[in-house]
Amino acid sequence: MRLSRSHLRTLRETPSGADSESHKLLLKAGLVIAHAAGIYSYTPILWRAIRKLMAIVSEEMDRAGAQEMLMPVLSPEELWERSGRLQAYGESGLLFRLRDRRDARFVLGPTHEEVVTDLVGRTISSYRQLPLTLYHQSVKFRDEGRPQYGLIRGREFTMKDAYSFDADRAGLDASYAAMRAAYERILARCELDHVYVEADVGEIGGASSEEVLVLASGGSEALLRCTGDGCGHVGQEALARSACEPPAPAEPLPVTEVATPGVTTIEHLAGFLPDVSVTRMVKSLIFRAGDDAVMVLIRADREVSEAKVRRVVAGHEVALAGPDDVRDLTGAEVGFAGPVGLPAGSPIRVLADETVRGLGNFVCGANRTDHHLVNANLGRDAPEPEFADLRVARAGEPCARCGAALERLAAFEAGHLFMLGTKYSSAMGATFLDSSGRETPFEMGCYGLGITRLVALAIEQKHDDRGIVWPKALAPYQAHLVLLSPDRPPAVEAAERIYEQLLEAGVDVLYDDRADVRAGAKFADADLLGMPWRINVGRAADSGIVELVERATGLVTEVPVDEAVALTARL
Amino acid sequence: MRLSRSHLRTLRETPSGADSESHKLLLKAGLVIAHAAGIYSYTPILWRAIRKLMAIVSEEMDRAGAQEMLMPVLSPEELWERSGRLQAYGESGLLFRLRDRRDARFVLGPTHEEVVTDLVGRTISSYRQLPLTLYHQSVKFRDEGRPQYGLIRGREFTMKDAYSFDADRAGLDASYAAMRAAYERILARCELDHVYVEADVGEIGGASSEEVLVLASGGSEALLRCTGDGCGHVGQEALARSACEPPAPAEPLPVTEVATPGVTTIEHLAGFLPDVSVTRMVKSLIFRAGDDAVMVLIRADREVSEAKVRRVVAGHEVALAGPDDVRDLTGAEVGFAGPVGLPAGSPIRVLADETVRGLGNFVCGANRTDHHLVNANLGRDAPEPEFADLRVARAGEPCARCGAALERLAAFEAGHLFMLGTKYSSAMGATFLDSSGRETPFEMGCYGLGITRLVALAIEQKHDDRGIVWPKALAPYQAHLVLLSPDRPPAVEAAERIYEQLLEAGVDVLYDDRADVRAGAKFADADLLGMPWRINVGRAADSGIVELVERATGLVTEVPVDEAVALTARL
Repeated sequence: MRLSRSHLRTLRETPSGADSESHKLLLKAGLVIAHAAGIYSYTPILWRAIRKLMAIVSEEMDRAGAQEMLMPVLSPEELWERSGRLQAYGESGLLFRLRDRRDARFVLGPTHEEVVTDLVGRTISSYRQLPLTLYHQSVKFRDEGRPQYGLIRGREFTMKDAYSFDADRAGLDASYAAMRAAYERILARCELDHVYVEADVGEIGGASSEEVLVLASGGSEALLRCTGDGCGHVGQEALARSACEPPAPAEPLPVTEVATPGVTTIEHLAGFLPDVSVTRMVKSLIFRAGDDAVMVLIRADREVSEAKVRRVVAGHEVALAGPDDVRDLTGAEVGFAGPVGLPAGSPIRVLADETVRGLGNFVCGANRTDHHLVNANLGRDAPEPEFADLRVARAGEPCARCGAALERLAAFEAGHLFMLGTKYSSAMGATFLDSSGRETPFEMGCYGLGITRLVALAIEQKHDDRGIVWPKALAPYQAHLVLLSPDRPPAVEAAERIYEQLLEAGVDVLYDDRADVRAGAKFADADLLGMPWRINVGRAADSGIVELVERATGLVTEVPVDEAVALTARL
Repeated sequence: MRLSRSHLRTLRETPSGADSESHKLLLKAGLVIAHAAGIYSYTPILWRAIRKLMAIVSEEMDRAGAQEMLMPVLSPEELWERSGRLQAYGESGLLFRLRDRRDARFVLGPTHEEVVTDLVGRTISSYRQLPLTLYHQSVKFRDEGRPQYGLIRGREFTMKDAYSFDADRAGLDASYAAMRAAYERILARCELDHVYVEADVGEIGGASSEEVLVLASGGSEALLRCTGDGCGHVGQEALARSACEPPAPAEPLPVTEVATPGVTTIEHLAGFLPDVSVTRMVKSLIFRAGDDAVMVLIRADREVSEAKVRRVVAGHEVALAGPDDVRDLTGAEVGFAGPVGLPAGSPIRVLADETVRGLGNFVCGANRTDHHLVNANLGRDAPEPEFADLRVARAGEPCARCGAALERLAAFEAGHLFMLGTKYSSAMGATFLDSSGRETPFEMGCYGLGITRLVALAIEQKHDDRGIVWPKALAPYQAHLVLLSPDRPPAVEAAERIYEQLLEAGVDVLYDDRADVRAGAKFADADLLGMPWRINVGRAADSGIVELVERATGLVTEVPVDEAVALTARL
């Protein structure tokens, strides 16, 4: 493509209002045009990168045995009523909804669990036709309250979503593993550093899920990852696991109640009891998890991870209990709760973080307003609670698995894999006849991967201060040929010859043939656009020499004009 | 793809409710699944055909210098207000409209004139950046009152739409010609018989347009085409042009008025004046064209084409005038109008079809209720009217251009090319600086081609009574390998070997390896699915022989197992 004939128009200044590096670069390079918040056109150069990714995704999904198709954008609301998802999703405000001329209701599909479950339920009748994995790469819609980061969190975007259908759980495990392997190949081909973490299932639902995240310093997600060789432990900050040393053993002393009038914070308590280390103080937080009340004990210098508590209480939403609730449950105001001396018959379930295990002679609330206990000991003064890892881990702490230090990383979510089980097939009555002739709901999995998002994440991870640095597999063009001296016939002749020969050799090439643009501006555009190889054709062409520049490293090689094409084609 | 592992499920019976041959076959072959009227999933085998067409379209558009991109589905209504199209399109009921969570209004794009005009207006500033043609292949939406013919007239469908931007009219002509040439190559590669006809510009607007139609006996559009060698005249039935012989000359006789009480139809008049041939009678029809009144004279045995009248009155909507209007304009009831003796100062414009030119001594209405004139002569009794071809041509009549007979054809519209001119760029303020530095609106063209529709039209044109007959370029698989004797090891071994070798040779192959399906059902499925070549592997495999069957012709060739692959790869 000759730049003089292309739609491209780069900007000299970094546009204001962009809230991520990829967003800035996409706007500055003219690769996206916004039409409304989170709604973009992808201009021709970017579309090439998106199509390259789509082709890679198709290849790897096909290789994993999945079959590509296309499901519609307009999804009848009736299907969403059947799955039970209309209400929850509808309340989130994320669904675009509309009515047709006959007042029939539709949703603009954000994902396609309903449509594909209905479709497979109508077409597959026997276990003999399983396993089956269908996928499509199509435009999706989410009416985000706050579209962010350009293409990373838009309202209209392209996503690959795959759905597996199996006769039993073992089949689902195999289908899931095949999809995860496909994700690995896709991300490897795109040369993107990434991690998988366990994740909440959210409104999609199902038994468990994993997110795949692409590392990027500006990422919206905080992760902790083990730096130990071969360990691989990594998790969302709220779910990663560090080890904690057991407390020094201590001979149990008699428990005593002390008056602590108005002392409701740990800071205040530490000032009030200056001889007691905060590592001998225990916070007792009261949560509501659905209808249940839960007390979580944790060493006073640590923070409770609500996400970890939620796991223990099996997926219920978890929230701190209000003052009235705390008073009803403990008999005291907020700030004075503790595991010892809870009112008889209190329905409260007591959990304790590992930091409290074996902790002797600790300070805790007395379940009496303005009073704390000193030298409390679990097992003696109160029943042993249920111990679990319930704290937020911190960078620098030892990994719970191997003991090496944890490091903090930032990343963006690129995809999500769900073990759905029979959530949708049961709700929607999508069944097959198993080998004994019984109507059985499909075991399902679903596997999303943001296509336009992943292209943006490649920019997010790989850019430098001069612009985009495309991974080779996604680069819109492999070579960026720059005619630096459009007024010098030998340079023009060499550039034209190289251009024609690259096209013939099947190398995607962008040719900056513009006659009215300075060399400096051409270099800036080439750096901004980020193709893997730049070929500079200038004065040296007089003596048959051009420069080959690697975008990622800046490495410059002088090569004879006649070898430039063969060399580029081989890279 | 092994059929035992594919999503395919064909039906034994032709489904009810399908209203075109392609619709029936797509449903019967399980290639589409309907989710609502005019809203379908394309299952994996059909998706292969659609993707092949999209690849052909991309190649040919790129070859013609167009640049592929992607514009969003959600199109802000504000753009449609600026173009002036919201009202007209909105009133048609064809727009899907919705609001987001902040009550901002959007349209689901049926076409993208507004978006692309806005986008180019924002990014292109100089004539030096022109010409520019952008296109995308994307999902489109039209809330059809009556979705019909399966994929041919759906509510959600995939369309290629291209938009050209030029500095002047000569540039637009060249861009238009390039797009038309690309359409020719696309349709040639798909082996589809087609025609171009001039067409109404409709709600898209602009100066002129052409439709490209694919011939099919069940087509919704009636055409007349000249059968003469090399003539090429073809048009919509209402616009095609036939020649008419001049009437026999006649010595003018004195005009006389005759009482014709209650005689308001030609049939009645012919009975009333049995000595006068209907070819000597003239109908005088009164139309309203906007605010203007128009009388159209035509020989009584012919029908007026309102489409042709509309052309003469420059695009105004044309409708027969009501009785009160006719009385006001002519002084007589409906049925007695005529060109002679119109009230003085009547604002009526008189047009006459060529069949009336030189017609002497004719009968016509007297502009007096219950009276006609006999032996009227134009020029003598009334001013010469404006003559034009205003009649509906008929099959069998001589072509107006070459005199050969016209034939009647049925077809479906596949695409539409428009000379938009500055309709959108002027309305939306999309301008560039021309070579003299003046702000100038872009000269635009737009070029639509239905992708999913064209795939359906290939079925519509090429099927037979056993099923689909795919053109090679669109066939989901080139070869359909049928294992007829899954219980005979030599057949199984030969089929498996051929399958592997075809895959290695890069031949798309669908392999019917199903163990529990009879040979007859496999043949029926293969015929229904319509891949170009079938390879039957049965008993003859014992002696190293398989059958190669051409779907289009049914021609069977026996070939050695070892040659089957090489032969198929070459076809």
